[in-house]
Amino acid sequence: MRVLGIDPGLTRCGVGVVDGSVGRPLSMVDVGVIRTSSDLPVAERLVTIEKGLDAWLDEHRPDAVAVERVFARSDSSTIMGTAQASGIALVVAARRGLPIAMHTPSEVKAAVSGNGRADKAQVGAMVVRILRLTELPKPADAADALALAITHVWRGSASNRLEAAVAQQQALAKAQKQKMRTR
Amino acid sequence: MRVLGIDPGLTRCGVGVVDGSVGRPLSMVDVGVIRTSSDLPVAERLVTIEKGLDAWLDEHRPDAVAVERVFARSDSSTIMGTAQASGIALVVAARRGLPIAMHTPSEVKAAVSGNGRADKAQVGAMVVRILRLTELPKPADAADALALAITHVWRGSASNRLEAAVAQQQALAKAQKQKMRTR
Repeated sequence: MRVLGIDPGLTRCGVGVVDGSVGRPLSMVDVGVIRTSSDLPVAERLVTIEKGLDAWLDEHRPDAVAVERVFARSDSSTIMGTAQASGIALVVAARRGLPIAMHTPSEVKAAVSGNGRADKAQVGAMVVRILRLTELPKPADAADALALAITHVWRGSASNRLEAAVAQQQALAKAQKQKMRTR
Repeated sequence: MRVLGIDPGLTRCGVGVVDGSVGRPLSMVDVGVIRTSSDLPVAERLVTIEKGLDAWLDEHRPDAVAVERVFARSDSSTIMGTAQASGIALVVAARRGLPIAMHTPSEVKAAVSGNGRADKAQVGAMVVRILRLTELPKPADAADALALAITHVWRGSASNRLEAAVAQQQALAKAQKQKMRTR
């Protein structure tokens, strides 16, 4: 399974591609940042992000896209730009019919480090270890995108396995009921 | 000048097209709302808004687009969806190279009713009067989109006229300087 993780932002939009599945080592395919200048109008910056994300999808053909879920926080002046960038990320992926998941920052921290309140350094160290990198990609947005992709491989697969198990149980129960009726 | 006003929203995205110029009566060309169901994933809803806005631009070929400027307010649970929808509106217009302006709600109120703190009813009554309608289009998002378009015709033209006057003054001053030098 190949996942493109997107950490949306207007100035720096982190992107990271991870290959892997649960129980096997994950590997980093590519990582980077789409940058836009704050001198440009917001609309142009969003178009740059759209084109950049399209290029990443064209190049890496992921099976799924994981986008950080953005929350309204009154203490952040950049939240509107982040929300707008996340909207672009969702549209770019949805236009291609790709499965999209949104993970909150604490979900990502919990998945990668085992602690939903882990700090940046802890999460970064785990990203390096999980992907067997020699150093943490910079800037932080790039590393965060990798953490999102890792989270999605693990959580996505976990919930898929759970769903599969539930479906199997239900199928078994149904089969038993039918067996009892036909007796 | 033809302006498409967009009042961004995830559930209801208001759209209104106004023809006109300063000093002449404005006219409504079309008004409506792009709706998306809250049962659908956000990404699909944003794609629906994108397609809807593209269709409005294809049909009406405006000279400019006016989008309501969204602010982060901690008291609103819908602000993230609104910001994402506004991002889509900006990208759809910017991809076509259309001039884009963003107006705040109080700028719109001030332009349309003369009072930046006017209530919905006052603004609505002025939209009806300015566009010589028989009744106010519903829902409120549709009426707000018209108010945005009106604001843009008036403010855009006003600032254009101001710029033109300033440019004329500067050209005159330059010409006089040159005249003095050549004496």
